[in-house]
Amino acid sequence: MELLKERIRRDGKIKAGNVLKVDSFLNHQMDTDLFQEIGKEFKRRFADAEINKILTIEASGIGIACVVAQQFHVPVVFAKKNQTKNIAGDVYTSKVESYTHGRTYDIIVAKEFLGAGDKVLLIDDFLANGKALEGLAALVQASGAELVGAGIVIEKGFQVGGDAIRASGIRLESLAIVDSMDEESGTITFRDDEA
Amino acid sequence: MELLKERIRRDGKIKAGNVLKVDSFLNHQMDTDLFQEIGKEFKRRFADAEINKILTIEASGIGIACVVAQQFHVPVVFAKKNQTKNIAGDVYTSKVESYTHGRTYDIIVAKEFLGAGDKVLLIDDFLANGKALEGLAALVQASGAELVGAGIVIEKGFQVGGDAIRASGIRLESLAIVDSMDEESGTITFRDDEA
Repeated sequence: MELLKERIRRDGKIKAGNVLKVDSFLNHQMDTDLFQEIGKEFKRRFADAEINKILTIEASGIGIACVVAQQFHVPVVFAKKNQTKNIAGDVYTSKVESYTHGRTYDIIVAKEFLGAGDKVLLIDDFLANGKALEGLAALVQASGAELVGAGIVIEKGFQVGGDAIRASGIRLESLAIVDSMDEESGTITFRDDEA
Repeated sequence: MELLKERIRRDGKIKAGNVLKVDSFLNHQMDTDLFQEIGKEFKRRFADAEINKILTIEASGIGIACVVAQQFHVPVVFAKKNQTKNIAGDVYTSKVESYTHGRTYDIIVAKEFLGAGDKVLLIDDFLANGKALEGLAALVQASGAELVGAGIVIEKGFQVGGDAIRASGIRLESLAIVDSMDEESGTITFRDDEA
């Protein structure tokens, strides 16, 4: 998606340790006009698919998922990272290992909002090691719903997540795949640029 | 907002301790078509106001804020509840006391995304004791931005937050104000219904 790649080139900041900061438009400050274009692109890529629910994970996936959902006219469910008093006991649970935060946490979704008959599209902002996406896929499987595919805004193509998800048979659409970043020059190479 | 009140009456569940569960359409599963109508209503109520940024708080405020922002064509910034590695040190911080979770937590926003010249609308799903909204208002004040007002989807009118926020001079627009709930009969009385 050219508009997105241009935005990443313009406003993304490369930090030590292969960190790509895009918090000026994607995951702290959020450009919802861009999100709308992202929604249209996911709708185009999944035009052939039957989807009746979008599943994402708090916190930074929620905004994108909600704007994307307006293109599909389906509800969004977000997996919560910690059990709170506001969710009753009847939940599906999965474990996610976070490299960013150096810990493992539970994600949960109430059983009443995911189940047999649901055709689910996963949406998230980033795909790196793929642990969050695997956790979401596990929730879908546990619920008996059908996993239609996953839509990712930015995939870090030099990390293992994308390959692992594709190898597992999940249909994965990433709108921008970063193959390499150079902190010194500030250069970002996207997968499509290789052609 | 009649559409919202009807939805609360139909799908809201009253639980012991004056808990109103609306997680089937507002804050776990999210009906983004309803959110769009909510966005139009906030746009109508703040039609006279100049707004160039929406500020909300993770997690359940984000989805609503992003869909509302599409009506205003302004970016959304969400306050984070815990410092993560992904945010640099240059942040505004405020403390929020949570009755739901029985603890006090920090909320933060990066200084680069809030500051003098910003005209800020606060958006959140619920207003009860008002602590989250007060924390967001404190972030706006610390940043030197102008606080234009606050838009709340559901205000619990029998708790102290709404009165406290109004008394502090903040322009508050709540789309549904619940004045009382009866667990046994399942009856919800909204403030407008009194007329």
